[in-house]
Amino acid sequence: MTQTVSAILDWGTSSLRATLLSTDGLVLDRCESPSGGIQFVEGGAFEAALMAAIGPWFAEHGPFPVTACGMITSRSGWVEVPYVDAPAGPAELAAGAKRITLQNGATMTFLPGLRDPAAKPFPDVMRGEETQIVGYGLAEDHTLVLPGTHSKWARIENGRIAAFQTYATGEIFALLTRHSFIARAAEPAPGSKPLWSAFDRGAEFAASDEPAADALLAAVFSARSGVLAGALQPEDVADYVSGLIIGSEFRQARAAGWLHPGEAIGIIGNTALTLRYGRVAPLFDVKIKPGPDDAATLGVQRITGKLQSTEQE
Amino acid sequence: MTQTVSAILDWGTSSLRATLLSTDGLVLDRCESPSGGIQFVEGGAFEAALMAAIGPWFAEHGPFPVTACGMITSRSGWVEVPYVDAPAGPAELAAGAKRITLQNGATMTFLPGLRDPAAKPFPDVMRGEETQIVGYGLAEDHTLVLPGTHSKWARIENGRIAAFQTYATGEIFALLTRHSFIARAAEPAPGSKPLWSAFDRGAEFAASDEPAADALLAAVFSARSGVLAGALQPEDVADYVSGLIIGSEFRQARAAGWLHPGEAIGIIGNTALTLRYGRVAPLFDVKIKPGPDDAATLGVQRITGKLQSTEQE
Repeated sequence: MTQTVSAILDWGTSSLRATLLSTDGLVLDRCESPSGGIQFVEGGAFEAALMAAIGPWFAEHGPFPVTACGMITSRSGWVEVPYVDAPAGPAELAAGAKRITLQNGATMTFLPGLRDPAAKPFPDVMRGEETQIVGYGLAEDHTLVLPGTHSKWARIENGRIAAFQTYATGEIFALLTRHSFIARAAEPAPGSKPLWSAFDRGAEFAASDEPAADALLAAVFSARSGVLAGALQPEDVADYVSGLIIGSEFRQARAAGWLHPGEAIGIIGNTALTLRYGRVAPLFDVKIKPGPDDAATLGVQRITGKLQSTEQE
Repeated sequence: MTQTVSAILDWGTSSLRATLLSTDGLVLDRCESPSGGIQFVEGGAFEAALMAAIGPWFAEHGPFPVTACGMITSRSGWVEVPYVDAPAGPAELAAGAKRITLQNGATMTFLPGLRDPAAKPFPDVMRGEETQIVGYGLAEDHTLVLPGTHSKWARIENGRIAAFQTYATGEIFALLTRHSFIARAAEPAPGSKPLWSAFDRGAEFAASDEPAADALLAAVFSARSGVLAGALQPEDVADYVSGLIIGSEFRQARAAGWLHPGEAIGIIGNTALTLRYGRVAPLFDVKIKPGPDDAATLGVQRITGKLQSTEQE
């Protein structure tokens, strides 16, 4: 059967995002279903959640191939797909995919996550980011950062993802500003701009030659001592901590060998985070190279291009 | 008037602890009043809270001198006492004290906190720990650690506290195990013993030669990746994180110059924390030297021994 369309699902814990593509890879439609997020789907009713989101597309086009990546392929998702070990590129990821047939006859493919067995102290894992990295492109040997709750730093070598490491930057920021005694801060008003002077102060300390900048457990206390000293205003705290923690991520990534002065590193992230990471990068004498807007969709297309020989489950 | 007794108050945010001493420094009585904690005292009714706690002692002995240290001397306490700058010993701390007269005619002295103006990026502060350090003793030039929510590492030189740095170790541990996605853990059952094998795994990684051990934002994610890899059991997580974070505190304190292999460092902490810190110390080739049980009381006595010439407010 010739399909004229296909769908790509970025299906995570908190929402299901779907993109309808033409055979030429043009985006025909998009939808996002917060109620389709894995945490909201009860009793394993994933197929019903999928139909609630993209049933109208099937009604219009008939059965067409669907490919999913993200936490929907984890143990708590619909079909658990074992991690593929790095180094891996599109071919290895395609070989690790699993397929099922939906009740309407459409084929649904679940892409695997990626594991770095050489990471210390335990193998590191990602699920979804590997697909974005493939979408960014693997032609060049370089380092990529994917900022977020659990940022990923990855090394591309010889057309494959060679290694990666997870930094819990976004989570530590949220814990400090929401729950801590030393840096609890008011939620910024919607649409408010970062206080760049406060952000820069934190980032510049993290990038400085001070030995204390190697002591993150101590450096985070500066959000408190800075206020006590009158050097920071209470409204500065959130952005100061943001600069300090993102700056510390760069400092630690440099210590761990992910970045070297003079390099350009790829970045895949939303606009707000790309702006913050781009502001920190020159303090470490690196440049950032933003990728395409929809790296996940491009990545799924590149991986599914290698899928022909995959067996159904 | 000759007083036959005196009282020392360790008055903090969550409780008021009082010790009644003879002129020879013998402990005659103790009491602890949780409702006297600064956060529970409304409308500045500190004198009433004090009388609720130690009124019976006044009834028995008549007015006697009272000395307080801790957060009761902060802006949110009863009498704010400005920080004294390091380097400082008992004489400098005594010179910074403030006195008031209670309604019953007793003299009450508030001891100052300590500030390190040379700390980076902002002056560092402590309020109460400086008194414990004086109680530990200042005869020897060495490093002291006071583990806790906000651990202090302090350097003793020439009979004074020369410098110090705060590590938010206990707070980061609590944030990770109570609120984080990566390391949320069940509260241990009361009286349960630490899982030392899990603790040691975390501490040994923090003490290892792995470059990843310098990247704390990444290392904390190992609590999650270790469970996913089957290397850690869910019940290991809290003690694994404890070992990892305390080990990282030592690693960072070493990087910041507070400890050097082969040294012995003093420690002032409760039994549970002293056990954990003592287990980590040999991994960094240092020994710990626990101090006297009631360092705060001893410290107040040493500081008040220098108080004679202090003016009343």
